Amino acid sequence: MAQASQAIVGDSEFDRDTAVTRRGPGVYDIDLSAGWTITGALNGGYLLAVLGRALADALPHDDPFTISAHYLTASRPGPATVRTDVVRTGRTLSTGQASLFQHDDEGREVERIRVLASYGDLDTLPDDVRTTAKPPAIPPIQQCFGPQDAPGPVPGGSAIADRLFLKLDPATLGWALGAPSGKGEMRSWFGLADGRDADPFSLLLAVDALPPTAFEMGLKGWVPTVELTVHVRCRPAPGPLRVSITTRNLAGGFLEEDAEVWDSADRLVAQSRQLARARLAD
Amino acid sequence: MAQASQAIVGDSEFDRDTAVTRRGPGVYDIDLSAGWTITGALNGGYLLAVLGRALADALPHDDPFTISAHYLTASRPGPATVRTDVVRTGRTLSTGQASLFQHDDEGREVERIRVLASYGDLDTLPDDVRTTAKPPAIPPIQQCFGPQDAPGPVPGGSAIADRLFLKLDPATLGWALGAPSGKGEMRSWFGLADGRDADPFSLLLAVDALPPTAFEMGLKGWVPTVELTVHVRCRPAPGPLRVSITTRNLAGGFLEEDAEVWDSADRLVAQSRQLARARLAD
Repeated sequence: MAQASQAIVGDSEFDRDTAVTRRGPGVYDIDLSAGWTITGALNGGYLLAVLGRALADALPHDDPFTISAHYLTASRPGPATVRTDVVRTGRTLSTGQASLFQHDDEGREVERIRVLASYGDLDTLPDDVRTTAKPPAIPPIQQCFGPQDAPGPVPGGSAIADRLFLKLDPATLGWALGAPSGKGEMRSWFGLADGRDADPFSLLLAVDALPPTAFEMGLKGWVPTVELTVHVRCRPAPGPLRVSITTRNLAGGFLEEDAEVWDSADRLVAQSRQLARARLAD
Repeated sequence: MAQASQAIVGDSEFDRDTAVTRRGPGVYDIDLSAGWTITGALNGGYLLAVLGRALADALPHDDPFTISAHYLTASRPGPATVRTDVVRTGRTLSTGQASLFQHDDEGREVERIRVLASYGDLDTLPDDVRTTAKPPAIPPIQQCFGPQDAPGPVPGGSAIADRLFLKLDPATLGWALGAPSGKGEMRSWFGLADGRDADPFSLLLAVDALPPTAFEMGLKGWVPTVELTVHVRCRPAPGPLRVSITTRNLAGGFLEEDAEVWDSADRLVAQSRQLARARLAD
């Protein structure tokens, strides 16, 4: 099912750590890598990419066009199984469902995440582009800062930071200096640390790989994702991506994070929205 | 499962036409009403509300918090069955899946729509509201226009227009006068024609009940929804809603429609995004 791509994709950390092994029809195995954790928890975008790969194998179309995930229970590094169902196959779009399972401490199989997605072929889309959205105003990379520039380590550890190339807009870094801006914004240049170019699956990671906007809004602590929907609209060009995340509706203990991902050719390659729980009390 | 509400909800067209009859555990029947069609096709938000009701019965929580639907094949007025699966039940959130089936001309059962959703209890949410989004700039109702004010009937019929109270912002009505603005925007006051107040299920209708933004962008014809995700963030207050829809990424034969629904108390009660096919050639 995999097709060669112009970008440098194939034998990278991201590919190895999201590769699933087909055990039989609709059943895939993987060892979820601890390399993609933040404060010990596996990143939701990494997990979505794993499920996305299984669906790409199960469906006749290769590229996720729209994919929604409901995060049920926290996944842990270690063995996991993905089970897929083909819902419908069409000429230009196919739809499938996938679930990630792990065994709990009592050896029972527990569902971690369920996904519903429609796939197509990005290479067959007409190139008529009438996007009116504009790329984010983010300073050049040299004027942005990554985890490596931080004064100290992230409390609880951040293995994922070693896998990513992240250079955040200083205007969204007040939280790291004890002075959050109060605005629900987070912007960053984004890539993979080993230089692998973006592809539709790494876009699923990119939309969930920045620090939470909640940090800039002065909230502390865990902002767990309840649901995440990603639209992949274009195969990303090689080179760094720009990710811009916005929160405008923090209310009732929940918030939304809207992410836009722009590639080096100034295309809006992915849009996502997630609903997350926000703990308001400090 | 149904709870009394302060708003006028209960014996209205919308309630009657979205009520499902439980045949057995996880199986519900309904006769989809032709009253909710536009140019003969059943409105996607109406269908989502039907599925939403079935899930509210199947799950221990009553209110959709985040619900995603993939539209597989076109539904028709007439008999349909909804089958639900409980994915996970939790203390504050439960997750379920639902599918709508109908029989095709050969008598085979065909899946029309599949939904994945997480439900909770809107009444238990804390009232801490830090929404930074602002209500849409839309003129007062008296300065807006509905289908009843149109010069002629919608080609192909619009039964749904008789079920809705729609008063569109004249700034987004250029298309109706042969002069589309070119901007991907649509704004309207919204209610139900028989005066029923809004509730979480009618919000699922509201996000998909306006004319397509594509009309204002000069596109003609059918803009079928591939996928629709709605976040219901607050129980709406009685009185008319304001719906504002934006498209910023028309490209490659697809577009997104982002909808915000504001209630009479100036709360952002629902946010949605759909991915739709856009036919570019006139």
